This record gives sequence, structure tokens and C-alpha cells, in this order.
Amino acid sequence: MSELKNDRFLRALLKEPVDVTPVWMMRQAGRYLPEYRATRARAGDFMGLCGNPELACEVTLQPLERFPLDAAILFSDILTVPDAMGLGLYFETGEGPRFKKIVRTEADVDSLPIPDPQADLGYVMDAVKTIRRELNGRVPLIGFSGSPWTLATYMIEGGSSKDFRHIKGMMYSEPATLHKLLDKLADSVILYLNEQIRSGAQAVQIFDTWGGALSGLMYLEFSLKYMQKIASGLIRESEGRKVPVIMFTKNGGQWLEVMADAGADALGLDWTTDIGDARRRVGDKVSLQGNMDPSVLYGTPARIREEVARILEGYGAGSGHVMNLGHGIHQFADPERAKVFVEAVHELSATYHS
Amino acid sequence: MSELKNDRFLRALLKEPVDVTPVWMMRQAGRYLPEYRATRARAGDFMGLCGNPELACEVTLQPLERFPLDAAILFSDILTVPDAMGLGLYFETGEGPRFKKIVRTEADVDSLPIPDPQADLGYVMDAVKTIRRELNGRVPLIGFSGSPWTLATYMIEGGSSKDFRHIKGMMYSEPATLHKLLDKLADSVILYLNEQIRSGAQAVQIFDTWGGALSGLMYLEFSLKYMQKIASGLIRESEGRKVPVIMFTKNGGQWLEVMADAGADALGLDWTTDIGDARRRVGDKVSLQGNMDPSVLYGTPARIREEVARILEGYGAGSGHVMNLGHGIHQFADPERAKVFVEAVHELSATYHS
Repeated sequence: MSELKNDRFLRALLKEPVDVTPVWMMRQAGRYLPEYRATRARAGDFMGLCGNPELACEVTLQPLERFPLDAAILFSDILTVPDAMGLGLYFETGEGPRFKKIVRTEADVDSLPIPDPQADLGYVMDAVKTIRRELNGRVPLIGFSGSPWTLATYMIEGGSSKDFRHIKGMMYSEPATLHKLLDKLADSVILYLNEQIRSGAQAVQIFDTWGGALSGLMYLEFSLKYMQKIASGLIRESEGRKVPVIMFTKNGGQWLEVMADAGADALGLDWTTDIGDARRRVGDKVSLQGNMDPSVLYGTPARIREEVARILEGYGAGSGHVMNLGHGIHQFADPERAKVFVEAVHELSATYHS
Repeated sequence: MSELKNDRFLRALLKEPVDVTPVWMMRQAGRYLPEYRATRARAGDFMGLCGNPELACEVTLQPLERFPLDAAILFSDILTVPDAMGLGLYFETGEGPRFKKIVRTEADVDSLPIPDPQADLGYVMDAVKTIRRELNGRVPLIGFSGSPWTLATYMIEGGSSKDFRHIKGMMYSEPATLHKLLDKLADSVILYLNEQIRSGAQAVQIFDTWGGALSGLMYLEFSLKYMQKIASGLIRESEGRKVPVIMFTKNGGQWLEVMADAGADALGLDWTTDIGDARRRVGDKVSLQGNMDPSVLYGTPARIREEVARILEGYGAGSGHVMNLGHGIHQFADPERAKVFVEAVHELSATYHS
């Protein structure tokens, strides 16, 4: 593999010195970019895009052509693992992801196979390899997966949910069945992420989009526990470098202290948490990634720069911060405003790294 | 007005001694009750029910016939004030509330009238008076309103939203216009709640359903500030008793310290916050209301009682706690399980009030 020309992102995740604060954006390859929409139209639909390594590579690289981003992230979906378990992932316009088969009983859980990442998810590994080749060492490539809890919400509800009726029903009435499912998912995700790392992913992020819907105790027992299992099962070094692990629980700001002990190198923050408070709370245990509200990109360039400055000042001096949005960039964001955001991070952060 | 026979709820909100912890449930008059569905069918639709004082009274009292609840809450909608401003509230099946007119510009804001609570919202005041008469002093009656921020989200988005694109766009690009709207809403809510109090409401709750979608600083500036204005403009004594004010910001668990200084007598908690931590954080400043996940009602009776015991133990000894769910009871909840919840609170809490 070619030598890495910009390793700020990896260095910041490990609290090693950097010249400026690195930055990337969740969902940076997405619908807000006209070139993404064009490629997606050629692919037919979203899963056609995920399943085609050449096109997935193309959209992964698109935002890097526009903005001085410090990392690329594999273009894929968080639900590839349950899809590979045979649940039949599909997307209904305006409805988000859905599954043809729904998991509701212990028998359903028992019948789920643990996917072989080479045989069942080879298209993802091919995308990772293609992207690494095309990146040619420009910036590191992030691999990712959904957290077991988050994957289970879609598998049990059958799609997106507001109140998580069925999975919480199982959690409060049949917790052993849910634990069995989460454990199987954790094992599957370990295999999946390790194969991404072997294929060339240089850091991995676990997206726990729905852990924040739980009470604190239930979060520990049904979400964090399984992310911890994953962290302890991952390959942590590859190509002679550490492979950092980022855990991101949306709406998890109340639980940072326990998250900091779960085996991650860095925690993702949404915008509801003050990053200065977060740094004091996690101490030296982990780096922090985040945390501008994506909606700030609807503001003026001056307002965007003000917000970047505020977050940089909140984190303060020294390494250990990767700037990002607190959630995926919105589909209606103006790419020119995203550029203002990314450029402001480099311009305004040098003073914190002297 | 008749003498109050059960004042536990009011006493707990003011940290006065009680025999057992009082309990009510957000949305306790709702679709999970077959008798509610029957009354609603007679009313035609939801707004027909809100607008008919006799039927609104009927559904308000229904849960009190089933469970030993310590408070009744006015049956109404949080969006009555913007509806009275002329925006045309309606409900689309499965879509939630929507407005016919949408507020997007400063001219839109300027053209909004401040509703006269007697002339424009008389049906709500009639409902309050009817309910007080029919309650006959059995338990106190809670009045309520949406918070200015929460009302504004619906007025600007036109209905429910996931990403609050338009209101956040205004917040980051044209904040003065949004402040003008929020200030007008705060003035309207003060008039509205004071008229509810004059009509017989014995406590009031401000529902800030969407304040938790903001960053901490934006929450202070665009949501809490206006709830504080409301609290300082409310009649705080009526019929010779204090009228307690409850502020409830869903997903506001990270901001309890500042909320405790905003003029409320009590803060509502959703289930993501540990109630013991919350009590330590707010000290003696306010009482706490909450905070069982409504999904626990999908669990077994034993599991429900276990969760009630855990929350009671978390709050600990002494007055200042009103048990509730952390959000409205789900439409698919079994009324028999709700009964287990309510009864367990009285049964298991006496030991904390000896």
C-alpha cells in the first residue's frame, strides 16, 4: 500500500501532535453533492451504488475533490450485516431502510447465520480495496459498521422507528432473546470490521445511532456492552500502524464517562454536548470527534466560521480532537458552505497546535 | 371551587411532606384506553374532541376511573395557541399535526396576532372549568402549553420534523426574526396559561418537546430564555394556594443545572437521565417529575414494579418527586400494565416518606 501523505486524522485520534485540527464530515459522500446524485442515478438506486465497488469508490472520493478533508470514509450502509444475514434490505422512497424479513422470536434469532465477510460481504471488501488504491495515500480510509443495538432496532422493528416498540418490548419482557441477538451481531461485526481492516481500512467507526433512546442502565447493558465486545475483538494494528476505533452514540452525551472506558480510542459527539465539558469529563482516556450541528451550514459563512472557532476554543490546546459535524450532513446543505466549514477548521486551528 | 381532597401532587412539587409519592402519566387520557377511542369516535376527530368542553372533560376523567392517579391533566393539544393565531391546525392520519399557513419570513411573524385567551381560546377555558366542576376536588388539574421553541418548530416547519431544517436555518441566518417570533409566542403563552389558571388550573406544565434538538448554547438562547420569561409572567397563586410550574424539555438531561435556575418549581425528566444524579445536580432548587421509559409498560408486571422501585430508590427519601413516565404513554400500552405502574408507585413509596 502507498505511504500515507496526510496522517493528521490518525494522529489526532491517538493524541499525537498535529499541525492543525483534522476534519471530515459524516455522510460527506452524499446527496448534497450534485456529482453524487449523478453517480447514484447511473447506479440505479442506493443499494446498487453500495454494491458496485467502482461506483462506491467514485462517490467516496468526490468530496475530497472539493474540500481539503483529512479522511475518506467507505461509502456503504450501516445495515449491510443484517442484509448479509438474509433479511433482505431495501429502501422505500421517503421511508428509509426496510427489511423483508423481521426478527421477533428466539427461533428467528437462532436461525440467523453469522455472515462470512469474504463470501457474503465481498462487495464491501472490494470497495475498500478499490478506494485504497485510488486514494493512493492521500488521506486515511475509515471503515465502519452499525452498533449491535442499532442494527437490532432495524431488524426487530423492520425499519426506522420512533418509539422502538418491538425491540423495547423484547428488552423488557424477553431480555435473554435480545442478548442472544446482540451477541450474534457483535460477533458478526467483529468479523466484518476485521475484514475491512485487512482490506485496507485504517480506522473504524461504530455508529450507534439509536443508543440514545435508552435509559442509562439499559444503554450499558444493551448497547455499550456489545460495542465494548467489538472493540476488544478488533485488529488494532495494521500496515505497521495502530487502527483507531471511534464509538459514536447519538444522544449519548450523558454517558461519556462510561463510554470512555469501553475500549475506544475516540468518542463521537453530537452537538448537544459542550466539547469543553466533554474533554474535562473523559480526561486523557480518549480523543473526541465532533461536534457542529449540521444545521449551522444553513447559516452565513461568518456564522459558520464563528461556530468552528467556538468549538476549537472549547476543545482548547493540544491534539485529541477531530472536527466533524454532530451527525450526517443534510441533503439540502450547500456544498459551498461545507467548504467554508472545512477550510475554517484548518485556518483557525493552527494556533491550538503551536 | 370545592376543597381539594388529594393534594399530594401539589405538595410534592413544592417539596412539602407527602404520605406517598404522587403519580400521573403524560398523555394518560389517550388512545391506549378503549373508552377514549370510543369518545373520540363520537367527537369525529381529534380537534373536534379538543374543541368540545364536555367531551374533553369526559376523556380527561377516564383514566382517573381506572387508576389511583394523583392529578388530572387538561385534555387539549400543545398547538392550540398557533392555531388561534390563524395558522389552521389540522391532523393528517399517521402524519401528526400540520398547519395550513406556514411562518417563514419577518413579515409572516409581524402579521401574527397575539390571541386573546377568552375570545380565541374560550373552548379551552370552558374545558378547564367543566373539568374542575366534574373533578369536584378529587385531584388537582394541570393546565399546559407548548414552549415557544416547540411551538415555533411546528409553525416554521409546517408540521413535525426530523432535522428542523427551516427553523434552524432561520436561527443561524436570521436570528432576530426567530427571536421576534419566540417573544410573541412567550407573551401569548403567558396570557393563555394565566387564563387557564384563572379558569381553574392548579399547576401548569410547559412542554418543550424539541428543545433537546439544540446545542447547549442555542438551547439557552432560543428555548430556555423564553420558558423563563413565561415562568416570570405567570400567576403563581390562585384559590389561596401556590400554582406550581413544571418545565419539561425532552432530551434536556444535559442542562438540568441551568433549567433549575429558570423559575420553575419542578423539572420533568425523560428516562435517559438517572434521577439520583438529577437530584444531586439540581439540589434543593426544584422538584423532579419522571422518569420511567413508557416502553417498560411492555414488560411483565414484575419488571414494571422493579423499575418503579429502582426510580423511587434513585430519588431517595423525602418529598420533591412526582412519578411519571419520561414521555407520553404509548398508544399500544396495555391499560392493565399502566395500572400496575400507578399502583406500584403508591405501594412502594411509603417507606421513603416516613
